[in-house]
Amino acid sequence: MNTIHINESRLLNRMERMAEIGMVNGNGVHRLSLTKEDKEARDLLKTWMLEAGLDLDIDKIGNMYGRRKGETDDAPVAFGSHLDTVGFGGRFDGSLGVIAALEVMETLNDLNLVTNSPLCMVNFTNEEGARFAPDMMGSMVVTAEISIEKAWNATDLKKSDIILKEELERLGYLGNTDPASFRPAAFVELHIEQGPVLEKEQITIGVVESVQGICWTRFVITGEVNHAGTTPMELRKDAGYVVSQIATYCRQLAGEYPGLRTTAGLIELEPNLINVIAGNARIATDIRCPDKHILEKAETALEKFAYECTYGENCEIEISTLTQVDPVKFERRVVASVANSARSLGYTTKRMVSGAGHDAQLMAGVCPAAMIFIPSENGISHSVKEYSSPDDCVAGTNVLLHTVISLSGS
Amino acid sequence: MNTIHINESRLLNRMERMAEIGMVNGNGVHRLSLTKEDKEARDLLKTWMLEAGLDLDIDKIGNMYGRRKGETDDAPVAFGSHLDTVGFGGRFDGSLGVIAALEVMETLNDLNLVTNSPLCMVNFTNEEGARFAPDMMGSMVVTAEISIEKAWNATDLKKSDIILKEELERLGYLGNTDPASFRPAAFVELHIEQGPVLEKEQITIGVVESVQGICWTRFVITGEVNHAGTTPMELRKDAGYVVSQIATYCRQLAGEYPGLRTTAGLIELEPNLINVIAGNARIATDIRCPDKHILEKAETALEKFAYECTYGENCEIEISTLTQVDPVKFERRVVASVANSARSLGYTTKRMVSGAGHDAQLMAGVCPAAMIFIPSENGISHSVKEYSSPDDCVAGTNVLLHTVISLSGS
Repeated sequence: MNTIHINESRLLNRMERMAEIGMVNGNGVHRLSLTKEDKEARDLLKTWMLEAGLDLDIDKIGNMYGRRKGETDDAPVAFGSHLDTVGFGGRFDGSLGVIAALEVMETLNDLNLVTNSPLCMVNFTNEEGARFAPDMMGSMVVTAEISIEKAWNATDLKKSDIILKEELERLGYLGNTDPASFRPAAFVELHIEQGPVLEKEQITIGVVESVQGICWTRFVITGEVNHAGTTPMELRKDAGYVVSQIATYCRQLAGEYPGLRTTAGLIELEPNLINVIAGNARIATDIRCPDKHILEKAETALEKFAYECTYGENCEIEISTLTQVDPVKFERRVVASVANSARSLGYTTKRMVSGAGHDAQLMAGVCPAAMIFIPSENGISHSVKEYSSPDDCVAGTNVLLHTVISLSGS
Repeated sequence: MNTIHINESRLLNRMERMAEIGMVNGNGVHRLSLTKEDKEARDLLKTWMLEAGLDLDIDKIGNMYGRRKGETDDAPVAFGSHLDTVGFGGRFDGSLGVIAALEVMETLNDLNLVTNSPLCMVNFTNEEGARFAPDMMGSMVVTAEISIEKAWNATDLKKSDIILKEELERLGYLGNTDPASFRPAAFVELHIEQGPVLEKEQITIGVVESVQGICWTRFVITGEVNHAGTTPMELRKDAGYVVSQIATYCRQLAGEYPGLRTTAGLIELEPNLINVIAGNARIATDIRCPDKHILEKAETALEKFAYECTYGENCEIEISTLTQVDPVKFERRVVASVANSARSLGYTTKRMVSGAGHDAQLMAGVCPAAMIFIPSENGISHSVKEYSSPDDCVAGTNVLLHTVISLSGS
């Protein structure tokens, strides 16, 4: 069985072909969800799926399913990702997982191999959230994290008169299937790492055990605008100072708690002039951790610190949670299947945590799930510079193939 | 002699009348240097000066001098301020010192009192620097801090085809007198505090002993843009973290060095998104101190800290000095004259440091000088909300009168 491999050139040619849809700068991809580029990508995928003899199915949120019969009528083993991109993204984020899923089907066809369980490949709608919020929408509707009505009513983030449901209809991707009926036996997603770890450690396959929890918090500080030269230090209400302290402490929290990743990427002062004490300041923090308990402890510590700084400076503060996603631990059995497949194929592996969010973490709420990562050059993603080598794309797809075969019982 | 007082209603009426020129929002004043509003203000002042029998004189940078003969031909005792305002300023900043200077002359006229030394009131050109750089231009040309040619060639900060010399000519304020010929025996400037100290301590007269030195520094940090979720902490080059640390340390320096005032009012991150590590960040710091040695020590400490943070985060840094002005210590004799005059008039006094820059600090380079402050409501200045009470304006002008009499030997 270890001698089974995917068809490399078919995989790579299809990735090349898909990357042409919405191509920018001769390399990157601009393919926002439910735009004409997304429709073109979906249409191409549909053609390929039908050519591969898959049973095509579209659900009410536009998720595309391609089913392949098994020996039994058990729940299918499912795998896939998404075809949409951020505004100026790469050709690997999402697309790799979808085209690899198709390649798994094609390889099984070539081998006339029928698995015990049926198989189902998926292209999820609007994973990126770059045009409609929230992100990971397709899998959120499947797992009932949000209702289909709420998803349908989402509006284009830049043109509020464009409604998601109408876009689905216009593009011909408003299906009839109930998303909640998708309850596979397992779900596996192949994706690029979008981080630097695998490349740095020269490892081919990341065996993803968990997805970090995320907490986004906004702190709005109100102080008092004053002259930098004439205002004594003890009479200041310097909102900028409060925000600087929060940003510094946020970063330093990562040294205190194992596994924590902390970022203060957004800071705004008003009036933002060299010789004026800021009267208003805003900061948004991004804290992530695979351990829910640690994430909560860190967030509590950060908020406590923010209150203390604010009161110490006689300012006022408003704190709001922008996003709160619990960490996800993938099921040991599926993770082990990925690891075993990779090792049996001779690839180096590393157990790791996903730093970014993925459809697989939603699917983990309704079935055993796991993910396969391959290296990202320089860790770059959501950029036209995103790159993963053909060898690594092939390796990841081979691991997906063997994982699917193992999970579906061939 | 202590029974001599200025004519309150004349002073206040003239302040009222002057505030009408360029009035905004029924209170504030928009009177940028060498605009038609400034010309109107100058013309009004000129009329008043001529009515008061002063010998009017305009120099090459447009500074207006009003001379009153003394018993001797000694160098004059000089006093004044400026009539220009920031974009949306108040009616007190600058104007008070000019109109009070005129009132001193008028009061002496009323009393038929001829001083031993001649007297000279001044309206300096472009103190604010809000339309042409640098600020304090008129006094800088007088004291040869910049050449007349450089000042003449200054262009409107918003319309680079407008040249200062042509504006002087157009408005009729390009005089023939050599600015460097203005070498008075002493110079005194009455001004609003522009800070909260006098009001807070319920003191009428600030006896200004010195003007803080100023150091403005820009730090530009280059790191690496990366994903907040997928980039391990140890691989980050977070320019935003470096800048937050610099801002925090800048403020905390003020606790380490007596008399230091520190502000980090300008911070900019790129791309400034919640889930992206900032690849570029800029911060500008404003450090002030009346003691040059401490100012230099603090600035050195800040730059050393900035380098350490930058290298600790594997980033790169560029540091540039935007402004560097040495502290000025006013001469003891003139300061004492202000203090004695205020006390003899029964006003409460406080020895203090000027937080902002003033023409008097330039004049201190060529003659003994000092300043008189009166309270600013809530410490607000450079705002249409700027306010000082009529009583305080009168008090300050009385102190100016008695200081001038004392310095000129009546």
